Amino acid sequence: MASQPSRGSPMNRTQTLVALRAAIAVADADRFALAAAAVHPADVAGALAQSAPEVLYALLGVLPLRVRAETFGYLEPDVQHRLAEQLSRGELAELFVNLSPDERADLFNQLHDAQRESFLPALAQAEREDIRALARYPEDTVGAVMTSDYATVPAEVTAAEAIAHLRNVAPDKETIYEAYVVDAGRSLLGSVSLKDLVISPPEAAVARFMQRDPLFVRADAPRGEAARVIAKYDLLAIPVLGTDDKLVGIVTYDDAMDVAEAEATDDFRKVGAVEHLPLKLRNATIGLLYRRRVFWLVVLVFGNLVSGATIAYFEDTIAAHLALIFFLPLLIASSGNAGSQSATLMVRALATGDVVLRDWGGLLLRELAVSIMLGVTMALVVSAIGFWRGGLRIALVVALTMLVVVIAGSLVGMALPFILDRFKIDPAASSAPLITSIADAIGVIVYFALATAILGLSHALE
Amino acid sequence: MASQPSRGSPMNRTQTLVALRAAIAVADADRFALAAAAVHPADVAGALAQSAPEVLYALLGVLPLRVRAETFGYLEPDVQHRLAEQLSRGELAELFVNLSPDERADLFNQLHDAQRESFLPALAQAEREDIRALARYPEDTVGAVMTSDYATVPAEVTAAEAIAHLRNVAPDKETIYEAYVVDAGRSLLGSVSLKDLVISPPEAAVARFMQRDPLFVRADAPRGEAARVIAKYDLLAIPVLGTDDKLVGIVTYDDAMDVAEAEATDDFRKVGAVEHLPLKLRNATIGLLYRRRVFWLVVLVFGNLVSGATIAYFEDTIAAHLALIFFLPLLIASSGNAGSQSATLMVRALATGDVVLRDWGGLLLRELAVSIMLGVTMALVVSAIGFWRGGLRIALVVALTMLVVVIAGSLVGMALPFILDRFKIDPAASSAPLITSIADAIGVIVYFALATAILGLSHALE
Repeated sequence: MASQPSRGSPMNRTQTLVALRAAIAVADADRFALAAAAVHPADVAGALAQSAPEVLYALLGVLPLRVRAETFGYLEPDVQHRLAEQLSRGELAELFVNLSPDERADLFNQLHDAQRESFLPALAQAEREDIRALARYPEDTVGAVMTSDYATVPAEVTAAEAIAHLRNVAPDKETIYEAYVVDAGRSLLGSVSLKDLVISPPEAAVARFMQRDPLFVRADAPRGEAARVIAKYDLLAIPVLGTDDKLVGIVTYDDAMDVAEAEATDDFRKVGAVEHLPLKLRNATIGLLYRRRVFWLVVLVFGNLVSGATIAYFEDTIAAHLALIFFLPLLIASSGNAGSQSATLMVRALATGDVVLRDWGGLLLRELAVSIMLGVTMALVVSAIGFWRGGLRIALVVALTMLVVVIAGSLVGMALPFILDRFKIDPAASSAPLITSIADAIGVIVYFALATAILGLSHALE
Repeated sequence: MASQPSRGSPMNRTQTLVALRAAIAVADADRFALAAAAVHPADVAGALAQSAPEVLYALLGVLPLRVRAETFGYLEPDVQHRLAEQLSRGELAELFVNLSPDERADLFNQLHDAQRESFLPALAQAEREDIRALARYPEDTVGAVMTSDYATVPAEVTAAEAIAHLRNVAPDKETIYEAYVVDAGRSLLGSVSLKDLVISPPEAAVARFMQRDPLFVRADAPRGEAARVIAKYDLLAIPVLGTDDKLVGIVTYDDAMDVAEAEATDDFRKVGAVEHLPLKLRNATIGLLYRRRVFWLVVLVFGNLVSGATIAYFEDTIAAHLALIFFLPLLIASSGNAGSQSATLMVRALATGDVVLRDWGGLLLRELAVSIMLGVTMALVVSAIGFWRGGLRIALVVALTMLVVVIAGSLVGMALPFILDRFKIDPAASSAPLITSIADAIGVIVYFALATAILGLSHALE
């Protein structure tokens, strides 16, 4: 957890960063080492992110081993992977030993079988087992973001003894601010914070003031759950239990922050019809971006054929009243906009746990009320334009259509994320693009059906 | 910071929460007090959130004062405000004394002048000044989310003396895991973590091992900056400096997590064309939702008039080739979808600091490559449909249009957030809806211009 920020007042820091980037640009190892020593490893990683793997390899090599591993930990997974391919078997083993366990497992999962087999024998057995244990959990589970470097204390020691123990193990642990009390079988009995240890009488037994039965998450739960529980209860770390109810790791608040940001980014992209992209945008290649975007674009083509077919069906009405086409983009867009408003509100509220499935009834009623108000407003706006462009009857058709499609778009936008969530489909993954397609089709059908009814009828009267 | 999670094994906890909700439903104060004592204040606040202010008032009143204040801190701002209106002057003063300083300042900002004047005299002068100082910072600045309950230690004390000092002040501080070293004028000299204090020799002077010139943020910076720095460097807390360079507070990681979530939610909603809504969705009223949504819906009506006007201009072409209308929703939607893909990628990347202004050149080139690939794919898909519906020339028009609009939509979607950011306009606030409108208009113009050129020309040859 929490590496200390680097030395250097703000001006010095900016100058050092400039010097660091300059050293990287010309691959000057000595000047790089000097500048890197004066800033935070996160800044070194940031400055190195765009370098060629050979430069990265040469420059990281001049850093002290601990700093090298920490800097490596701040690199993006794809950069880590490219760099790992440059390393010899011995270098890879050396790096692994110095990485934190969660980063170690992440990197391990990215390596080819041949790479894994080449360096695993160079590690101690305990480390091999630790890597295998952590690498077992699928991406996106709590197990994949937890660390096994947590501190434990026995229940029967005193506060002073526990502090002495934490002092000894501090260099190897992600955090010593929360320690976990386990029995001989690694069942979780409680947790104790360093704050509690410091304020308790030194001779008090940990068992007397530890927090019994603390909150925990399961290793196979979605990783977002650890982040949500940590955020909700303002925790520093949360213990993780395996399938056999034994303590297998902890998730710390800083990893929870990264998870929360990654999940928000993922939802954000999905709502924009981009499939899961496990990278920062700047690191995504052209081919990858193409693959993540083409699926929804093509699928939505077929969604929009419903709108096209509706238009073909009403071709006679359109031919008789070409002015109707004027309003088509407007009506379709308004229905889609209203739907996308309620869908984004809903998708985000479901993702943050702000609303849950059983709330749907009340929310749908409220949405009905809001959308009627919005629909009436929009109908008034568009009827004025309709009257100016096409007269009274066109105004009537356009206004009525607007009222219906804004309400329909809003209700679909609110309901679909719920329905997808109910069937365990990620609401973010498909609702926004789907809703736009559905709203488009509803818009076209309602518009020309109303036009045929109202204008067709009036034709007969002429 | 970090209240301990509540006692109770998972089964007990679920049962206790059920008992808690049941007690609230019938406003049974005794059973409420019993159940509330067994769960975390965040859970009590969650269960109380939907209650009428009178019930909330009556039930909170039975909790011990500290727990009452902590539970109050977990309530949503609007619920806090409604409850505060129920409190007498004495009760309000009592609550204020026990709130953490940042929550205290937030609540103060929500009160009417009359309420403020009524209870301020009941507070000690130091507390009055503290409230006024924190309440001075505008919403959405670092100053509005910081707390003044941070721990300081003098530079000349030893590690053992510093620990003894932190032990004494622990009950009144948000965190004792980071302490700040200041001189007599409250200039920030350094920071020291409890971990460093614990592992240092007891007789070592703090000045010898403290972190000099730590990272900091300014009180008038946007609140998101504190969250970004804390997340980037994995900090527990970051010191906040006022305009005179003096230490005025700290932002802790748990508040940074709340800020990051709120900012992501805000961006999410803005991309969905919903204006800033400083509430959880479940707490928003019908009127508020209407007001936050109607603006963009109406503005976009006028945006879409460009598309309508284009259609009117090309009415002759349309009348001659009614089959063209079949493809209109499809082409408009594809342009909008491609634009919304690149816009959401971009808006989020700018918000998380993944890309910055100077990256725009490279990103635009990459977007051009990606969008050409997407455009060609889409053109192939739609040309098949075009051939089936309208023959070779229609297929040509539709495919060419698709190629152009997918590229144009993507480039606009990528460029507009940059342009808005350049002019200090929030990219999330306006890009997605604007881009859809622009993409729609481009789609219509390109489609009918190409159709007139290609079909018009071929007409002449017939």
